[in-house]
Formats: sequence, C-alpha cells, structure tokens
Amino acid sequence: MIFQDDTDTYEDFESLALRWRGERFGSVGIVQKQFITFNNTLNLRSGQTLEGFTLAYETYGTLNEDRSNAVLICHALSGDSHAAGFYTGEKGEKPGWWDHSIGSGKMFDTDKLFVICSNVISGCQGSTGPSSIAPDGKPYGMRFPFITVSDMVAAQRYLIDYLGIDKLFSVAGGSMGGMQALQWAVDFPERVGSVLFLASTPRASTQNIAFNEIGRQAIYADPNWKFGNYYGGAIPAAGLSVARMVGHITYMSEKSLEEKFGRRTQKGSELSYHFKTDFSVEAYLKHQGERFVERFDPNSYLYITKALDYYDVADGYHSMNEALKRTQCPFLVLTISSDWLYTAAQGIELVNVLRDLQREVEYRHVEASFGHDSFLVEVETMTTIVGGYIDRLLEKQPKKSEGLRLETAEH
Amino acid sequence: MIFQDDTDTYEDFESLALRWRGERFGSVGIVQKQFITFNNTLNLRSGQTLEGFTLAYETYGTLNEDRSNAVLICHALSGDSHAAGFYTGEKGEKPGWWDHSIGSGKMFDTDKLFVICSNVISGCQGSTGPSSIAPDGKPYGMRFPFITVSDMVAAQRYLIDYLGIDKLFSVAGGSMGGMQALQWAVDFPERVGSVLFLASTPRASTQNIAFNEIGRQAIYADPNWKFGNYYGGAIPAAGLSVARMVGHITYMSEKSLEEKFGRRTQKGSELSYHFKTDFSVEAYLKHQGERFVERFDPNSYLYITKALDYYDVADGYHSMNEALKRTQCPFLVLTISSDWLYTAAQGIELVNVLRDLQREVEYRHVEASFGHDSFLVEVETMTTIVGGYIDRLLEKQPKKSEGLRLETAEH
Repeated sequence: MIFQDDTDTYEDFESLALRWRGERFGSVGIVQKQFITFNNTLNLRSGQTLEGFTLAYETYGTLNEDRSNAVLICHALSGDSHAAGFYTGEKGEKPGWWDHSIGSGKMFDTDKLFVICSNVISGCQGSTGPSSIAPDGKPYGMRFPFITVSDMVAAQRYLIDYLGIDKLFSVAGGSMGGMQALQWAVDFPERVGSVLFLASTPRASTQNIAFNEIGRQAIYADPNWKFGNYYGGAIPAAGLSVARMVGHITYMSEKSLEEKFGRRTQKGSELSYHFKTDFSVEAYLKHQGERFVERFDPNSYLYITKALDYYDVADGYHSMNEALKRTQCPFLVLTISSDWLYTAAQGIELVNVLRDLQREVEYRHVEASFGHDSFLVEVETMTTIVGGYIDRLLEKQPKKSEGLRLETAEH
Repeated sequence: MIFQDDTDTYEDFESLALRWRGERFGSVGIVQKQFITFNNTLNLRSGQTLEGFTLAYETYGTLNEDRSNAVLICHALSGDSHAAGFYTGEKGEKPGWWDHSIGSGKMFDTDKLFVICSNVISGCQGSTGPSSIAPDGKPYGMRFPFITVSDMVAAQRYLIDYLGIDKLFSVAGGSMGGMQALQWAVDFPERVGSVLFLASTPRASTQNIAFNEIGRQAIYADPNWKFGNYYGGAIPAAGLSVARMVGHITYMSEKSLEEKFGRRTQKGSELSYHFKTDFSVEAYLKHQGERFVERFDPNSYLYITKALDYYDVADGYHSMNEALKRTQCPFLVLTISSDWLYTAAQGIELVNVLRDLQREVEYRHVEASFGHDSFLVEVETMTTIVGGYIDRLLEKQPKKSEGLRLETAEH
C-alpha cells in the first residue's frame, strides 16, 4: 500500500512509490539529460518524412567492453528520458519516473547493466515533436508528421547505432513502452536480445481507442487549441487537463479508487450541496489534470495517443502471427489482474501467438489491485519477477571474459 | 444482438433495440406529454427551497377503480417523461425510450397496469430545471437550487397525490431510475407496493463520481458555458458532447465495443495517418455526443450528475441498514454481468442489507454482454424476469372485485 493517509496531499503514484521505497538507496545519483541530433531523414510509416531530428536521452551504469549489457527502456505516454536519478540532487527534487527500479541492486541493476532511456519522437521533453522549431523557424504544431510506434522505434535505432551497440541485451517497457519493446523485436530482430513486455498490448482495443478519442476531443474543443497554433499564447490547458483525467481513471482500478477515496469528502467536510469539489476523488483527479498541464504539450498528447490507437503489431503484415514470425528473442510478458486498460486477455493474445511460433516466452500474471499503474507501484513484486528474469538471462550469456582468457592462452 | 451491420449508421441502443423488437406491436399508441404545476414549496435536502414547480409527465393504460394498479417509472440521467408511444404517429418518429417494455402484453403490461413516467426536476424535458424561467423572468441557470435524488422523489410525490393514488403498485427504474425507486421506498414506505431496482446502485461508487466529475469539468471548460449563463446564446456544445462521450463509454462493455467496432475504420477505408476520425468507434462516440447536444441542457447535466454522485441511500441515516429499515415492500434487484458502471457488487450490497432486515428480495443476476445498457437492450430477458415478477405480484394482490361482490351479497 503506497498511498499516503493524508488525502489532501495528492501526488501521483510514482512519487509516492518512491517515498515508500526509501529515498536514494542504490540511486544512480546525479544524471544529465543528453541530446543527439541526427541529420538523417526518417522515413515514416505514413509515407511522410522527418528531415533531421533530435533525441533527448539518458544513460545509467556502464557499457561493458563487448557492449553486450545495454538495456533500452521505453517510456509510456506521459514519460520521458529521465527514468532514474536526479538532475541537481537538491532537497525535494523528484527523481526519474522509474527510479525505484533502476540503480545499484535494483530491478535494472546498474552494477551489471547499461541502461538507456530516450524521449520518443513526437514527445515534448527534449526529442523532436510538434512543439519543436521546424526548419522554417516556427513550431511545427500540427504540421509535424504523423508518428507511429514503429517510427518511434526507428528513431531510437539511430541512438543505439550512435552509442555503438549492435545488439541490445534487452528492450523493456510498460504500457506504450511495451509496444515499443515488442516493435523493436519485429522491426530489428537481430538487434534485440530479449523483450520485457509489461502491462501492455500487441494492439489497442476498441475501448483503448474510445478513451483516447475522448481525450483528443477535449483538447480539440478547447478554444485555446487553435488547431495546434497556440505556441507563444495561452495553451489549451483545460482541454489537456480533462484528457489527462480521462486517462488517469483508466490507469487505476475501481478497487484502488474505492479503497483510497471511497465517498470521502475533502478535509472531512460536509457535502456542499453546491458545484464545488466535494469528494476527495474529484480533487485528486483535478490535481492530476492541473499538474499534467505544467509539463506536457497538448499537441504531443494528440500525436502520441494517435500512435497508441494505431498500434497493432500486425500492421504491415497479414496477421499477428506473420509479424511475430520475424522475432528471434525470448520474451517476458507480464499482465496485471486489475489492469482494465491493457487487460490480461490482451497480453495473453501475444503469448499465444509467440508460443504458436515456438518462441521462448515467460508469461507472468500478477495479482495486484492498483490497476494498470501496478507495474510502477508494485516494486517488490516487479523486482522479483522482472529482476529475476534478467538475472537468468545474464547467467545464460556466454562468459566473454572467460572466452578472452582462453583466447589469450591459445596465443 | 441488436446492433446493425451498417457501421456508418450510428444510432443509440434504444432506437436499435426498438427496430429489432419489431415496430408498434402492442404499442400504447399516440400519447401526449402533460404538465402539472404545483404552487407548493419544495423543501430540498440542501436546506434550500423551490417555490413552485412544474412536472412533465405521461401515463399509459388505465387506472383501475381502486387505484391499485399504478406503476411509477423513473428515468435515468438522460431520460424524460416520454417512456412509451408516439406523439404524432408520423412515419419515422422515434417512440418513447422504453417503448419495447411498456404496452399491451409487454413487460409493463398496460392491459393490467397504469404506467406513469415524469421528467425529474432539474431536468430539461418539461419539468422545472435550470433552463426554466425563474420568478424574475430570466432562466435559473446555476441559480437553480441543488437537487438530490430524494428531492426528485419528493416532487414526484406531488404528482402521485394529484393523480389520486395512495399506494403505487410498484416503483421501477434502471440506473438513476433505480435510485429513485429505492428512495421512494425509504422516504414514503407506506405508498410503495414494490420496488423494481434494475442495473442501479444504493450509492455512487468512487469511480462513478470520478467519471461524472470529468464530464462536468469538460462542461466547465467550455467557454460558452459562462458559469451557466448561456441561454439565448451559444451553448457549451463541445463540453457537453465530451461529457456524453465519457458517459457513453461507461454504459457499454469492453466486449460489446470490441464486437461491434473492433479496430474497423470508417467505411472500411485505410488509416488516414492524420488527425481524422479513423476508427468506427470514434465516429460512433462523436455521433453520440453530437446527438445528445441537440436534446439536453448542459446545466441539467451538471445538476443531475451531482445528484447521482451525492446518491447514497444511507444519506441522513447512520447506515444503509438504518435507512432501509424504513422500507416495507418487496424488492426485485437485478444486476448485469457486464455492467461496470453499476456493478453486481453494488446491487448485492443492497440485497444483503435488505435480507439482513428480513425484507422480501428477489435477486437476479443477468448474464448479458452489452454492459450497463443491457437493461434496455436485452428485451426478452428483461421481459421474462421483470414481467414475470410483476405477474407474480399481481397474482398475490387481494381480488378487490371479488371482495366487492361479497359485500354486495351481504347487503
């Protein structure tokens, strides 16, 4: 249970989980966001192109000599490249979004692994997206080309090339991050050592699309949106806030909402019999919406939710089976019992096709009550399952250093 | 299965169900919306008062001599008094919202029953609400007093008095209608012969509140809302449309969305790779939003969703048990397997308390895949269960005509 009892202080799951985990034990410490600009042309799934692009990224741990210990972490809809550590180390600074799982001795153990995380293209946290300046000197806005998950992955491939990594030890991600991880294994099978697919889906469901469309409609309806031309003026904050509230409900289970908030009123006050924020759950959602507006670009929200809706690993193939035939690596597929955004049935669909194809799949279904966000919140359970899976993969790796010694002996 | 195959024609569940049922067999025929204005003061739960109010209502069938066959039907959030029949009989006219269940030989059999349905106060279909003209000659807007489900019921009581009915044979409703039916049994126990509580809840859940609050935030965010002072000008259509879309998703199950729409695109076209309406489910939801705007007042939406959120049958009592101790009648409680708005667990909570209190309760759990709206859509099943329950109640009634004959014989 990671919620605080103080219902008047609303913080999102991640920061609460962090506090609960106990500060900076095993932290990767001070990190720096890095930027790399590619002058290459990105040929997009839509047929459009992106002429040059920047990726914001961070790395944690050390790349080993044979460059075989790199893990690419892919972030979810609202994530960014800052997966772990601190930028300044000042008191009260919030660490990266998956800090409790990346560091010395943690789920992604930086004593052994070199961890990379980059902001997706079409994002708004340093990688090129609709809020970036186009070649004509003005923000792209809705002129930014249409982006798919496959395009995000194609951009990441340039970063992996730049870092001199031929084959990733693993590509990992929860939610939209899982889609990217899966897409890596289809688009670049020879470069992926394993996929960690957490609380995700091989294709967006009808309900997934429906919820995202409502969020987009809320943004379109905001007169400040102005067809995306709001840069330099008032942003469509109200629309984005409603979109985030819709999204946020889908990240939590009915049970976790009920247990945390029930029908409690704010500060235990009486019902107002007025159009005030009566219930704690209302204040919580409003707070989530307002905080999100401070850090996220509404146009990026439109682009990325469209990428989510378009996501179907079978895209470009005749079937999911045909698409997944391209994969070569082992998979960990993890679903969460209370996740109603990306249900167990969606994960199992992937497992079944992979097993039909004789791929090596470890399927784990986690009993957890927090809904979709459990993959971030249930740190102990996730560390046991995912960390354990990584350890077993590491053990299976050929011991390169021994190999080198043998070679030396043969000289 | 009541959906049409033509995915380009989007109509709501009710009208599709109607078409499927087969036209006007057993129809109550041409009906007229009636209005009754009370000059009484309505003392509201908030402590405020409403000085005089109008109710729009309709009746179907004939009130019997001893006035013992009256059924009050309470409508849901977006419903109105037009539960059955036609206003003009012109070709293509849409009948009342529960037409397939009210009429000769139907679930509510008008050969035996006198059916009453009135628009709730704070509504916008003829009963006094925020769009009505206040004593100062201007629309109430947000000056309209705060309304609870108990207040809706208190207003209906004046109508039942006016119709000269001491005791209702039954009070029935689905969704918010079920809340009203239950509240009747608590507030006026001696006037309720039975309660038919369908796909409803004795108290709004945290998730119920959360979804409603998002709808309200969408309306508040619409600059046309102007704190409710939009009458005579542009209405906050975009906000209300988003609110309806959010609501509509909760009325359908994931499975029914998947089966109906899947990932199909509009008219079977290719994906646009643009910010167009790609998927059929998006077009369906948008259509639902747009149609709703044509017939519903945004301020009424705010008032009624607040009434829903406030709903807790224990309100004013120490517990649900204490509140329900006031009830005297038998209950039919019906839940639907795929209803994730008002879950089976919520209905069962009511059943358990009623059984603890030794009340006569028939609990029926219906396996149906359409989600919350199944109570409107699954006509055959509902007719069997609810119609059958009503028949058994009718059989148990003392035969008044026989009693009269005996009295005559004794003269």
